[in-house]
Order: sequence, then structure tokens, then C-alpha cells
Amino acid sequence: MSIIAVGSLAFDSITTPVGSVERILGGSLTHFSNAAHFYSKPHLVGIVGNDFGEENKKFLAQNASDLDGVVTLSDEKSFFWKGHYTENFDEAVTEITELNAFAKFDPVVPQQYLEMKDSVLFLANIHPDIQRLVSEQCQNARLKILDTMNFWITSARDSLERAFDVVDGIIINEGEAVMLSGEQNLLLAAQKLFRPNFKFLILKKGSNGVMVFGRDYMISLPAYPLTKIVDPTGAGDSFAGGFVSYLDNKGWFEPTQEQAKEAAVYATVVASFAVQGFGVQGLAEIGLEEIEARKADFRKKSGF
Amino acid sequence: MSIIAVGSLAFDSITTPVGSVERILGGSLTHFSNAAHFYSKPHLVGIVGNDFGEENKKFLAQNASDLDGVVTLSDEKSFFWKGHYTENFDEAVTEITELNAFAKFDPVVPQQYLEMKDSVLFLANIHPDIQRLVSEQCQNARLKILDTMNFWITSARDSLERAFDVVDGIIINEGEAVMLSGEQNLLLAAQKLFRPNFKFLILKKGSNGVMVFGRDYMISLPAYPLTKIVDPTGAGDSFAGGFVSYLDNKGWFEPTQEQAKEAAVYATVVASFAVQGFGVQGLAEIGLEEIEARKADFRKKSGF
Repeated sequence: MSIIAVGSLAFDSITTPVGSVERILGGSLTHFSNAAHFYSKPHLVGIVGNDFGEENKKFLAQNASDLDGVVTLSDEKSFFWKGHYTENFDEAVTEITELNAFAKFDPVVPQQYLEMKDSVLFLANIHPDIQRLVSEQCQNARLKILDTMNFWITSARDSLERAFDVVDGIIINEGEAVMLSGEQNLLLAAQKLFRPNFKFLILKKGSNGVMVFGRDYMISLPAYPLTKIVDPTGAGDSFAGGFVSYLDNKGWFEPTQEQAKEAAVYATVVASFAVQGFGVQGLAEIGLEEIEARKADFRKKSGF
Repeated sequence: MSIIAVGSLAFDSITTPVGSVERILGGSLTHFSNAAHFYSKPHLVGIVGNDFGEENKKFLAQNASDLDGVVTLSDEKSFFWKGHYTENFDEAVTEITELNAFAKFDPVVPQQYLEMKDSVLFLANIHPDIQRLVSEQCQNARLKILDTMNFWITSARDSLERAFDVVDGIIINEGEAVMLSGEQNLLLAAQKLFRPNFKFLILKKGSNGVMVFGRDYMISLPAYPLTKIVDPTGAGDSFAGGFVSYLDNKGWFEPTQEQAKEAAVYATVVASFAVQGFGVQGLAEIGLEEIEARKADFRKKSGF
């Protein structure tokens, strides 16, 4: 139970081919902890505005060990994102981004988080300079992982490269890996991006599954097949939440191929629930029993 | 050893991001039997022209039980295809198609093929009316499978639907399944295309793997990860050759989920070798030992 998670807390207005929702709870930290809590409730570091209500904090608290690192700015609103997905969920199109409080995010990790032994640090998609500074604060972390996005690859590439230097693993999607490496072949892309300091690199392929690259191994898994996706927002953070919480729970700070595969299978299943509802709803009614049942089904369909 | 395979024999001039070859042996029947021969050498039905040399027939004979169904037209040339692949092998662009002898293909299955007991019929991608007529000839076949392509979906859809009525399984790729069903979600597409007479439907996703749908099950597998692809021509026929030969060898005429998965894992590995060389070269130096070794590696990377 010693994940430190740093990221965004937001309200999202989302339209998908299935429907529409207005100002629901979102943000990378929300999705990450919502997916992580079955195995390890994270200690959160984030920032919100005056519109972030008690019920929102209550929801976060259910999935978190600690909200001491969540700052509220009384003169700002919370991060707001509005967007829609094109047919077959191929692309997320941003209509509105209001950073609001998030523009002032200067995360200070509470002392009691820093003092935790054998902690795992998850840096959700934020400016790579902030990721690096937070990473340098967390001296006790046994495993540091960062997620990023195409925006930082194009606008803050040098910062991103420096952030890569101070973490043990990265999570990146297919398009970002190709963009960052210049390689079309995903194995070559991963090889090029892999640093000596990395314990693993996770390459997400959406509905086509995930690859995990370790120092001396690689893993390729399909996605759990779904007939209906409702909202892919936060799918990557949900995968990360599943994966990181599983490693933290098991104390696998430098996972072997078998350990990483086990965590990735678990994370695939958790993420598959997450996309079956808007926002945090996909996992709302789900417990470990449902997750285990789907894992068994996933094994029948894809295990060999 | 009782597969009847009907399809094209051709010469291909191919340019890929890796290189170029001129007039090499190709065609669906060539790739199918080249991938099938490890477990079951097919009895071939095809047509060639006067440019199809003894060395070509000799090569075919290595992978086949029987060439009695291969007709040679002395006043025609063989089917010729010239094309190139775009970056990252995303698309095959046809430059020249000369049907030649293939335009006169009116397959007559030799009597000794028809008399084989417990045979399996593979109908490679040819006009669906021909597929249907051949299927009706093969009364002793315990399992009949057809492959098709987008060209027939747009130009001979009614014929294709009628051909679907007289087979036990189809092989189709992602784009074709979406086009034919009108469904973007691949599971819904497969559900819509699945007929009561089908034992299975195979949905190929190229470098993203394959799905197999049975009457009461589905399977989803990733591809075997490769750093270098040389030539994807015939990848689908190679998968089909691996899959069908495995079923035929085991006598699995109505495969269960576990049996179909075992055959699909094998076929995935065989197809992964096939794309590592131009034309038939990818499998040229490969025996069951190399296939088993790669299967074990595939299991480590993707099995769970």
C-alpha cells in the first residue's frame, strides 16, 4: 500500500459514439487510483479548484490511502476537458481545455509519503520537468514510472528525455513511441527508447493490446475482447493503475517476464472494465471476484 | 494428409520497404501449401501457363501430396502480379495484374481427390461462384473453408453470400469483415457474419494478431512479434496453411476452443516465418524444430 501517484484531477465533458456526459469526475489521478485500489490504494498528489466538491473528495478517498497531497485552490476552478471520440473510438478530439488550477500545479510530496519505505512512484501525464522534480524528491521509491503524451514529445522533448533519465519505467502509446523513436516497427521503436536505467517500457496499443519490454524480455498481449466500449477516456491510466498496484502489492520492484506478464494480464482486465462505462462508472460495481472471473475468461480466449 | 486446396499459382514482382524481387513463385496455393506441408501436404487444384517451369513444379511437389489437379495451358502465361507495399507494410498497392491462364480457371477436382475420406477442403481467394461449385463437388470433405478478399465483397457480393452457405468456415481480414458487416467493432462484425452452418470464422488482423470465432467461443491472439518483416505477401494464406494442416493432421473437423487455439498458435508461428523472406523463402530453411522453438518463445512472450 505505498504508491505515490501524481497527476491531474479534472472534470470531463465527453461525447462518444455511445452517448454524452457533462462535467463528470476525471483526470489521470482519478482513473489511476480507481483502477489501482483493488490491490493498493495510492497516496495522491494533485490540485483542484473551488468547484471540486465534498462528494468528489469522498469518491477519491475511497480509492486512496491518503489525500494529504491534494491541494485546493480557492480562487480557481478545477481542470476541465471537453472532447469527443470519432467513430469506432479511433481518435479523441479536444474541444475545450481549461487548465485552471492545474496550470499552477507545483506538486509538493507530503513528508509522510516521502518517508514510506519501498514505495512506488507513478507520475501520470504532466509536464516532464515536473515529473523529474517530483522523481528527485522521492528518494525512497523503489520503482518510478512515468506516463507521457504526444503533446510533450513535440513541445518539451528535451525535458522529456531528462525525465526519462530519472525513472525506472515509462508508459507510452503506439503512436507516441513511433513519433519519439522515428521507428515504425514497434519492437525497434521500443529498443530505441529503452534506456539502461529502465526496468521496463510499456507500449499501449489500445484495442490491439499491450507490449511490455524488460531488460531481457518482451511480452505481447491482446486486449480483452469487448463488444461494447462506452468511454475510452482514462483507459491508459486504468491500465497503469492495474499494473502498478499489482507490482506494489506483490513487492515486484524489478519484475521478471512472468511477473510483468501476470501484472499486465491483470491490468488488461481492469482496463477492460474501465472503458465499459463513462468516467469512473465502468469500475463502479466491480470487485476482485468479477476481475478474477474475467481473468479466467481472458485466459480461455487468449492464454495458451 | 487429405487436404484439397484450390487457388492461384502465380509469379509475383514485389517491392517492399526492405527490397525488391522479380517474377518469383507466388499465388495463394503456393503460400498455402508451403505453410501446410509440415503437417499435411495438400492435394492441389490450380492452373498455370507455359512459363511455369519444371523447377516451379518441383518446388510445388515438395509441399504437395499431388499435383494431378494442376492444369497447364500451353497457349497462356501464368497469372502475374506486380505490386509494392507502403511504409510499415500498411498497404499493398497493385501495379499490374495479368490474369492470363487464371482467367480460364474452371477447376475440376480429380476423382482420386474426391474419393478421399475425411478430407478438408481449402478454397483460397478466387471467384466465389467457383468456390461454391468446387465445394459442391467435394461431397466427402468433412471441413470446407474459404478465404476471400475485398474485391469479391464489392464486385460479387451475392455470389459470396451463396458461397458462405456451402462452407463450414471462412477466413477474412479486419477491413473485409468491417466492410461486409457494416460493423466497426470486430466482435459485432464477426457475430453478424457468422452463419449457422459455420464451425468457425477466422478474422485476421495482420501485425495485430488474429481472432477465431466458434459457435460458442472466441479466441484472440497477438501476432508473434518481429523486428523485421521482409514480405507480407501470402501471410494470410500461410496462416491458413498452418491452421488447416494442423486441424487435418489431428482430425479436428469441428475444433473446440482449445483445439482451435492450439491450431491458431501454430499457424501464427508458421506465418511469422513466412513473412521473414520474399515469396516462399521465409519458410525455406525451416523445419518443425525451429517452429517448436518459436512456439515456446511465443508462449513465453504471449501465453499466460
